[in-house]
Amino acid sequence: MTIQLDENGELRHFLSTEGLPRPLLTRILDTAESFSAVIDKSVKKVPLLRGRTVVNLFFEASTRTRTTFELAAKRLSADVLNVNVATTTVKGESLLDMLRNLEAMQADMFVVRHAESGTAEYIARHVREGVAVLNAGDGQHAHPTQAMLDAYTIRREKGDFEPLRVAIVGDILHSRVARSQIHALNGLGVGEVRVIAPRTLLPRHVETLGVQVYHDMEHGLADVDVVIMLRLQRERMAGALLPSEHEYYRLYGLTEEKLRRAKPDAIVMHPGPINRGVEIDSAVADGPQSVILKQVTNGIAVRMAVMSMTLGAHQKTEEVAE
Amino acid sequence: MTIQLDENGELRHFLSTEGLPRPLLTRILDTAESFSAVIDKSVKKVPLLRGRTVVNLFFEASTRTRTTFELAAKRLSADVLNVNVATTTVKGESLLDMLRNLEAMQADMFVVRHAESGTAEYIARHVREGVAVLNAGDGQHAHPTQAMLDAYTIRREKGDFEPLRVAIVGDILHSRVARSQIHALNGLGVGEVRVIAPRTLLPRHVETLGVQVYHDMEHGLADVDVVIMLRLQRERMAGALLPSEHEYYRLYGLTEEKLRRAKPDAIVMHPGPINRGVEIDSAVADGPQSVILKQVTNGIAVRMAVMSMTLGAHQKTEEVAE
Amino acid sequence: MTIQLDENGELRHFLSTEGLPRPLLTRILDTAESFSAVIDKSVKKVPLLRGRTVVNLFFEASTRTRTTFELAAKRLSADVLNVNVATTTVKGESLLDMLRNLEAMQADMFVVRHAESGTAEYIARHVREGVAVLNAGDGQHAHPTQAMLDAYTIRREKGDFEPLRVAIVGDILHSRVARSQIHALNGLGVGEVRVIAPRTLLPRHVETLGVQVYHDMEHGLADVDVVIMLRLQRERMAGALLPSEHEYYRLYGLTEEKLRRAKPDAIVMHPGPINRGVEIDSAVADGPQSVILKQVTNGIAVRMAVMSMTLGAHQKTEEVAE
Repeated sequence: MTIQLDENGELRHFLSTEGLPRPLLTRILDTAESFSAVIDKSVKKVPLLRGRTVVNLFFEASTRTRTTFELAAKRLSADVLNVNVATTTVKGESLLDMLRNLEAMQADMFVVRHAESGTAEYIARHVREGVAVLNAGDGQHAHPTQAMLDAYTIRREKGDFEPLRVAIVGDILHSRVARSQIHALNGLGVGEVRVIAPRTLLPRHVETLGVQVYHDMEHGLADVDVVIMLRLQRERMAGALLPSEHEYYRLYGLTEEKLRRAKPDAIVMHPGPINRGVEIDSAVADGPQSVILKQVTNGIAVRMAVMSMTLGAHQKTEEVAE
Repeated sequence: MTIQLDENGELRHFLSTEGLPRPLLTRILDTAESFSAVIDKSVKKVPLLRGRTVVNLFFEASTRTRTTFELAAKRLSADVLNVNVATTTVKGESLLDMLRNLEAMQADMFVVRHAESGTAEYIARHVREGVAVLNAGDGQHAHPTQAMLDAYTIRREKGDFEPLRVAIVGDILHSRVARSQIHALNGLGVGEVRVIAPRTLLPRHVETLGVQVYHDMEHGLADVDVVIMLRLQRERMAGALLPSEHEYYRLYGLTEEKLRRAKPDAIVMHPGPINRGVEIDSAVADGPQSVILKQVTNGIAVRMAVMSMTLGAHQKTEEVAE
Repeated sequence: MTIQLDENGELRHFLSTEGLPRPLLTRILDTAESFSAVIDKSVKKVPLLRGRTVVNLFFEASTRTRTTFELAAKRLSADVLNVNVATTTVKGESLLDMLRNLEAMQADMFVVRHAESGTAEYIARHVREGVAVLNAGDGQHAHPTQAMLDAYTIRREKGDFEPLRVAIVGDILHSRVARSQIHALNGLGVGEVRVIAPRTLLPRHVETLGVQVYHDMEHGLADVDVVIMLRLQRERMAGALLPSEHEYYRLYGLTEEKLRRAKPDAIVMHPGPINRGVEIDSAVADGPQSVILKQVTNGIAVRMAVMSMTLGAHQKTEEVAE
């Protein structure tokens, strides 16, 4: 999506991990590294975005994701405005009119979450010069900051991407997280990306995304370095795409026994919140191979990175323009 | 309303534009001018209200208006507390008890919005020394910051007020915005203020407010410099005060054709949010004569101005008292 | 509750006033004294908690209490995150998983309010090293910051605790406030603590808490220095524990006439919000002996004190560990 980059190849918006050049993906991880140092201190604050206004524009409720963006913005010293559109009387205002108004209030960045795919990109195409848009999840399309924090966590735990085998397990079909992970991991040069799921939960032609397809855990997990479990949306059960929860757990739930198929030092990841006893056993989620909580911590640093990079790109453009 | 001014004629509260002396109205606009320079920068922040606590006390939901006051306060470095009373369990607490409690928490300013006319003034009469009250809309009475941002926008676009002809179009009867605009524009010396509305949407004896009354757009818009469209509250339709929406649009909706009656360089204003195709056509709202989004930007600067002026007046009083 | 103190006897969490050593209780009051000086200034801000993240974790709605903690944190320059769990879709996440996630976001402090007794302590037992937990009210168990602000108010108004007689009036049985007050006042060495209530609203064996028990105001209020009225939860009426509201007021409502039994310079306190004409007459609530609004102001200073003390204790531990 070329709209993400400016003429110098700098990140203007962050909408998707698809098609981003490897040096840029790597730079996001390197920038996050510097912010990890900041948030480990007791004074977890840098003045990079002081006087900037970040608007959390959430059309789909998600306290958890909004919170991580809000903390990232505050640790960069930005002013944060939370606009929860679901609970707001929009008085029949259209999305574009609402956007124009927030822009007119001199917002510098929109963090957008919406149940429909493509909303963040639509907004990015319509904001004025100098405003950055971050996708915090759009429909079943993309959740790029989640994918980058996963990549960041993998790099911190495992080092180089090239020799790694990574398995993504669960409902690939409906998961924006999985889609963004596949693009990010392939973009960063992971040796082999696998997906493990029943046929009903895989997109058609999924192998064209550059993944190896497995339908069972026994073969899929063999010798992998990283296991990424996806959250099971229980609503899917009703849709006849899935057998019972119990049956799903038996086949695809990550237990200590199944995990033994992976390498002995394999790490276990999950975007959260976890369904204990559905897609993952508590013994694994809380076990020594789990890095699930590290992912959360890393998520703040990665969001600080994309926030500072996108606004930094705009700032340079402004300086040139002046 | 003399309660707005202290013994030196400084602004202590901002409740209404009615009866304010011209030099004071002008000073609000001049102060806003200095803040417009601030919010055009990338670091949109001044430390004028650092350590001060601004309480948004909204008894009537309005994300839009609350947001502009919140941003204005944050750009002045104040701490902001949002108290949305509609959704709060007040446990049978009376308004005054609630106020006393917030005062006891050392609030420095209340920004009040309420469906009943006179609430902001009532609160101003009961707050302790040193606390400022800003009216963010009370019933059908007043919305003075909206009126001042409109006046500010007119001055920025048109210069001197004296030679101007300004037309306000729509439901004057129920509009706190219109009432405040009429007082502000007359107070600032606008040459001629017109109202254009059907008889059912005009207050009795409206001409005593110092306006020329028109019932049709053809004559009312003739040779005006500024056209202010009011938002049509669709609820009015049911009340038999209005014909159909379609009929209203035909008679009073601002189209490019009707706008041709005004001066060629006339500007078009609207307090927002706009009802496209009801009181204004999209071609006009988004057209070259529209300054609707500039009004939003100017609204932040004007709110910063009245916030800093009212707290400044209190500060002087405190210093003298010490 | 020894979990509140670290090995050096410093305050790590603030969960209950029960069993705290007198020097520590006194130090809380002394620390609050220094913050009272801060919040009386127009710039009510100190940088003690800059870069720290305080999470308000409210499982029970209370705008009033949340607001005082939020203001206290902001005046210490902390970043504040409000997580209202009642209105949050927790997606079936367990309390502990939620906690682990917020911890992973590098929260430094949880302010917890919950309808079940013991929740704050449960959380304190499960947070990681370096995170402080403050109890903002748990079931009918404790509300320790309220008790400390009451003690602080008494000391400011009356000086030494030893010679004082303090009466607590109302529904002792269901009141977390009363329980925490009794422990705090006895811990600080108040000469005599009395409870005044009908038998149905007293815990069994209440005298073992170190209080004198009275069932009528005439004898109970005789010669006391401080009268603390409790809020009557009107729900209790339905439960047959109480006669009518009118009858309750006749017997236990504080009127000017009943107050004459106390010492002439006795002060009247109430945790708020008050039920006028139920447990207290307006003439008393607004009269010269009432210090009810001073309690609110003092509440900010006391909360700043426990916030800075608990984080200070952790900081020392961290420094030693480094």
